Amino acid sequence: MFKSRLFTPGPTPLLPQVQQALSLPILHHRTKEFRHILTEVLDGLRYLYDTKHDVLLYTASATGVMEGAVVNLLNRKDEAIVVSVGKFGERWVDLCRTHGITTRVLSAPYGQVIDPQDVAVQLEKYPSTRAVFVQYSESSTGVKLNIKTLGEIVCQFPQTVLVVDAVTGLGVMELPVDGWHLDVVIAGSQKALMIPPGLAFASISEKAWRLIGNNRCPSFYFDFRKEREQQLRGETSYTPSTSLILALREALKFIRELSREVLIENAGLLAEATRVAAKSLGLHLFAEAAPSDALTVVCAPSGIDSSTIIKNLKNDFGYILANGQGEMRGKVFRIAHLGYNDFCDTLALIACLELVLRRLGVSVNLGSGVRAAQGVYLRRKGVDG
Amino acid sequence: MFKSRLFTPGPTPLLPQVQQALSLPILHHRTKEFRHILTEVLDGLRYLYDTKHDVLLYTASATGVMEGAVVNLLNRKDEAIVVSVGKFGERWVDLCRTHGITTRVLSAPYGQVIDPQDVAVQLEKYPSTRAVFVQYSESSTGVKLNIKTLGEIVCQFPQTVLVVDAVTGLGVMELPVDGWHLDVVIAGSQKALMIPPGLAFASISEKAWRLIGNNRCPSFYFDFRKEREQQLRGETSYTPSTSLILALREALKFIRELSREVLIENAGLLAEATRVAAKSLGLHLFAEAAPSDALTVVCAPSGIDSSTIIKNLKNDFGYILANGQGEMRGKVFRIAHLGYNDFCDTLALIACLELVLRRLGVSVNLGSGVRAAQGVYLRRKGVDG
Repeated sequence: MFKSRLFTPGPTPLLPQVQQALSLPILHHRTKEFRHILTEVLDGLRYLYDTKHDVLLYTASATGVMEGAVVNLLNRKDEAIVVSVGKFGERWVDLCRTHGITTRVLSAPYGQVIDPQDVAVQLEKYPSTRAVFVQYSESSTGVKLNIKTLGEIVCQFPQTVLVVDAVTGLGVMELPVDGWHLDVVIAGSQKALMIPPGLAFASISEKAWRLIGNNRCPSFYFDFRKEREQQLRGETSYTPSTSLILALREALKFIRELSREVLIENAGLLAEATRVAAKSLGLHLFAEAAPSDALTVVCAPSGIDSSTIIKNLKNDFGYILANGQGEMRGKVFRIAHLGYNDFCDTLALIACLELVLRRLGVSVNLGSGVRAAQGVYLRRKGVDG
Repeated sequence: MFKSRLFTPGPTPLLPQVQQALSLPILHHRTKEFRHILTEVLDGLRYLYDTKHDVLLYTASATGVMEGAVVNLLNRKDEAIVVSVGKFGERWVDLCRTHGITTRVLSAPYGQVIDPQDVAVQLEKYPSTRAVFVQYSESSTGVKLNIKTLGEIVCQFPQTVLVVDAVTGLGVMELPVDGWHLDVVIAGSQKALMIPPGLAFASISEKAWRLIGNNRCPSFYFDFRKEREQQLRGETSYTPSTSLILALREALKFIRELSREVLIENAGLLAEATRVAAKSLGLHLFAEAAPSDALTVVCAPSGIDSSTIIKNLKNDFGYILANGQGEMRGKVFRIAHLGYNDFCDTLALIACLELVLRRLGVSVNLGSGVRAAQGVYLRRKGVDG
């Protein structure tokens, strides 16, 4: 007998008050009541994004809004730079190429990152670059990119915007959108926001709006200008997922009461505890140099397929972890720290990982991973572990 | 940021499917549909009780049905024996005395139990004893009574019935009601059944019905004969808590799919792991000799008030544990193993208890309680810990 425990980098466990909101009677979206709710939700998103600019809400996967960013900001044959360090970086490349963008790719091997200065060099070399696309947290490899420095660099170029996929970064790690000069920041509902998949968001700076200007957007659905006009008065252009918006309202209330800083601190504690615990168990981290706090990508011990570890954690204890993607499948397992999981959940996962490894014949000292995680907690509380 | 984690010996966490059932539209109780549901529920209760006899369902606290047992089985001045080893034994005494029963009390100091042979001696001495009242699990002290042997003893006396308060025992420890010759067994909804408080149950053997016979029951609401007639056709005499009955249907479906044996095995694992972990942390158990698997009563380390441990577990991690009752308040804390809590939940609680003790200045080896609990798990799985 065990509960199902979701530890994937999206979807993440639902807040209880989100579950309740999802079972409310359906609303009609062309009503005063709904306009009031959408306005409240957009305001809550601006709080989480820490921005005074527009945040647009779409009924879509985040990939849809990523495509929206490409087609609103750029015309065919415009130039872009993509910083690509994993599967989601490759998605930016695919999106740009689909729309005929002249795409320059700055890539690094999986598990590593790109130095923002390399982007500066490219921008100097190609001054007509219209956009730089990047991830904040690359959830295929578990790295975090230095968005703050990238923001400082790109804001020096008046004709270039920085577009950040922060789908697994927003609400997980510090991300002051205006303070860091980030022009477009994209997020999704099923990550730190603790609601089901189905909604995606984009903040859009004044600089980005200027660039969008009078571009002829080739997308009907993802026409940001049209959508902005509607959302300024609490409407959406097309039928929105009203139940998810009610759920989002509850999640944003929870985050505002908790504060975005505490939400981020929680993910940071879980991430550091997991990294320290994994290392104390003799496991290697895939992204050693610049680990994201959204998830920890752990290498399976030599001779063991990570699928077996994942399967045993599920069958014996109910945990759902993500495998590696593509060529990393079977080599790593990914433990997420985003959303409605707390330190207690992470302690139990570490203890169960120890049991699974022991039963697979790996030499681990039972309790030692937990002890390492407890030490992180105590140090963060200012107590000697 | 943390979740609320209920570890009290009732109420216990709700099953997710119970939460859903509680939000269903209200039913009317004088309908064919409801009769079908109540009949299914009573059948499910007979499965959990492992009995072919009647199980009556009441909209009441278990105390109400305990009183029902007293007033249906006994008339004023009838003789009874109460086995009393804690607060709930004292409740049997209060109930019997309220109704003018000639009550002989066999008591033991808190934390200890009564030898069933002492009951045999009393029954030989007072052959007109009409009922023996006892707890299976005394949740004020954490002991388990030897109900199996008591059943063997009492069934030798054709004019005496054994009445067991199994409120925190049913679904937690082995309890074959017919196999152990138990005449009346009382349970409540908010324990192993994982639904809210508000329903209580009593199984009633043929021997108990014979004793009830044509007694003039002084209670209108708790008249078991009248209620039996109604429930045989899927009705209740008075308006029942229909939403709780829908919830109970879901809980009983879950238990049947899992099997009562696995439900009991889960509580046994949690209980043994907690006992072994507490001892490995240098803590003393209040009920060392005959510990119940429903809850573990742990003594606070010398010089520390258990209220402080309970408060810190709540404020730092969201755990809700019970304090000692009456004179044990401040001296012990009680960790429940019943209901919808699994091994992962218990591992995390142990790790957090270690942290709380350490921060209170108690010398504990971080991770050692978890390690002891992991060892229990591995031994039960046949693996060398």
